[in-house]
Amino acid sequence: MKIGIIGAGQLGRMLALAGYPFAQQFTFLDTGTDSPGGQIAPIITGAFDDPQSLERLAAAVDLVTYEFENVPVEALQQIARTHTVHPPVEALRVSQDRLLEKRLFEQLRIPTSPFRAVDTLESLRAAVRELGLPCVLKTRRLGYDGKGQRVLRKPGDILPAWTALGSVPLILEAFVDFEREVSLVGVRSTRGEVRAYPIVANTHRDGILRVTLAPHRHPALQRVAEQHMKRAMKHFDYAGVLTIEFFVQRGRLVANEMAPRVHNSGHWTIEGAATSQFENHLRAILGLPLGDTTPIGHSAMVNFIGRMPPRDDLLGVRGLHWHDYGKEPRPGRKIGHCTVVAGSAVERDRLVRKVLRRLPR
Amino acid sequence: MKIGIIGAGQLGRMLALAGYPFAQQFTFLDTGTDSPGGQIAPIITGAFDDPQSLERLAAAVDLVTYEFENVPVEALQQIARTHTVHPPVEALRVSQDRLLEKRLFEQLRIPTSPFRAVDTLESLRAAVRELGLPCVLKTRRLGYDGKGQRVLRKPGDILPAWTALGSVPLILEAFVDFEREVSLVGVRSTRGEVRAYPIVANTHRDGILRVTLAPHRHPALQRVAEQHMKRAMKHFDYAGVLTIEFFVQRGRLVANEMAPRVHNSGHWTIEGAATSQFENHLRAILGLPLGDTTPIGHSAMVNFIGRMPPRDDLLGVRGLHWHDYGKEPRPGRKIGHCTVVAGSAVERDRLVRKVLRRLPR
Repeated sequence: MKIGIIGAGQLGRMLALAGYPFAQQFTFLDTGTDSPGGQIAPIITGAFDDPQSLERLAAAVDLVTYEFENVPVEALQQIARTHTVHPPVEALRVSQDRLLEKRLFEQLRIPTSPFRAVDTLESLRAAVRELGLPCVLKTRRLGYDGKGQRVLRKPGDILPAWTALGSVPLILEAFVDFEREVSLVGVRSTRGEVRAYPIVANTHRDGILRVTLAPHRHPALQRVAEQHMKRAMKHFDYAGVLTIEFFVQRGRLVANEMAPRVHNSGHWTIEGAATSQFENHLRAILGLPLGDTTPIGHSAMVNFIGRMPPRDDLLGVRGLHWHDYGKEPRPGRKIGHCTVVAGSAVERDRLVRKVLRRLPR
Repeated sequence: MKIGIIGAGQLGRMLALAGYPFAQQFTFLDTGTDSPGGQIAPIITGAFDDPQSLERLAAAVDLVTYEFENVPVEALQQIARTHTVHPPVEALRVSQDRLLEKRLFEQLRIPTSPFRAVDTLESLRAAVRELGLPCVLKTRRLGYDGKGQRVLRKPGDILPAWTALGSVPLILEAFVDFEREVSLVGVRSTRGEVRAYPIVANTHRDGILRVTLAPHRHPALQRVAEQHMKRAMKHFDYAGVLTIEFFVQRGRLVANEMAPRVHNSGHWTIEGAATSQFENHLRAILGLPLGDTTPIGHSAMVNFIGRMPPRDDLLGVRGLHWHDYGKEPRPGRKIGHCTVVAGSAVERDRLVRKVLRRLPR
């Protein structure tokens, strides 16, 4: 099967690496030739909303998937006229707009923090009165890795935040004073088979994921998270990997956002689970039986942001797996990660500390 | 680093797949463009002994390795004048000639079955008298997967065997009435660090490996096998993966042959060990710390010979991993394999039976 992947970043690259043992062939579409995916498969270069690039991709493949959320919906709709596209375009459309996403959570009875759509300074002031301080003002679209948001702590924060973000549609959200951030990576195949990985605990800094600990063993939260996931999957008649990020607030799950794709918080599955999220995404969209999602021991994934740490030193850490995406280093950019797999959570945590001490500052 | 791989078969392909997470780049040299490696990296096509092809490969890469034994030694020597080549050319030279290989085993005090060089019908008759019947007549060079050998059971077998094989230099070996075939895959880095995987039990049919069970837990044999391996590695000042196949005869190891490369009986390590043989081969030749060789549970590798089995059916087997090399099916050709990983040997054996029942006959 020839599979087209829109986006040739590290997620696309890891998808192709997982697909080669199935003798699948891949073609990427991305704006530049030097992206991680382009190093291991042919790449069509062009804007994501350029009808000609999309046509060239479509002509080269049998089936299309995507690896990031900022693909224009219209582009996917164009391809979907002639090709099967997974995950469904509608899931992408909703996940691109925080307002639609939060409304869907409400509609599906997936608990989420209170929110208000904000289009004017006046409606912002009204929304702050209703939700109370602190609260978070966010752009509805194109926010990622902590970009496009401001925390409002006092009335004086309102005007500066509006000035900074108010040129685009916004959403105001009640501040969630959470104990922990977790995520659930699940997968549903075109045949309707569903599997979920264990929930994992994530640590962010400056809005960027730094560390994922897997599994975060909590049977009660796991059960509830999977119920939420299944409702969302059913709603979209979903195929592929779906990720939902949750806050844990007073011991309960509060949905933060969803991503209709393989996810950074699922990278640990490459070495830490019987089947990786990447292989399962491909099995799902190809209509194959899904692979076992059982974890192998206790894993941690540590992102490499901005600069790679000293490789030769880190490779000496027992059970450590190295992922260099072949990207140009740049401040704040995800350019690689490592995963450690250990026999116990205590040993895993010891290895993580070892890794963190070696990260460049 | 740009790594050149001579040979673009499945071994080369799996090497490149293991190297991409290290941001390594690969270029293959092989006789055809449709080989498994050529589907995932650039390939230079040409004969292995064509100086121009070798020069083109050399010009494209920093470091050269090889994935099969039948690379002409002269070709490697040509490249070695300007480039580092691992494993050492001398290891390849010895492994290409069963007589040199057996002599080396003797020299290194690695037990092997009695043998005689045979160049004439007369010397064959003399060798049969010395070693006794049954015995095995083999070509010294280019034998693999059971090709180029004849078992002599009675005096009347001598002449037909000589007629069939006698046009090339031969070796006569005493017949080893073995209980089991095992192999040891080990690895030594350019820094001299050595690791070994557990020995595994192999089943051949028609001279082709069918099934590998890993680990074959036997601490005493493991210790002895590793001692043999280390002597061979030290002899060659070896870097890379080295495989030694042994017979187990009356509970003792008898070395059969060695392969200076990643090996079919090590494929289980992709999912069944903390670090795969392919990753460790690359770590070794790049001078990086070697990865953990501890097995994850109990694994079995089953080769797909001639035809692929029904994929959708087999993928439903829990813990099964699929490897389709993207090769044209052809009788007797290795075109893929699967690995099952289980929590116990009993469960692993149950899964193997399940897989074997589904293989095409």
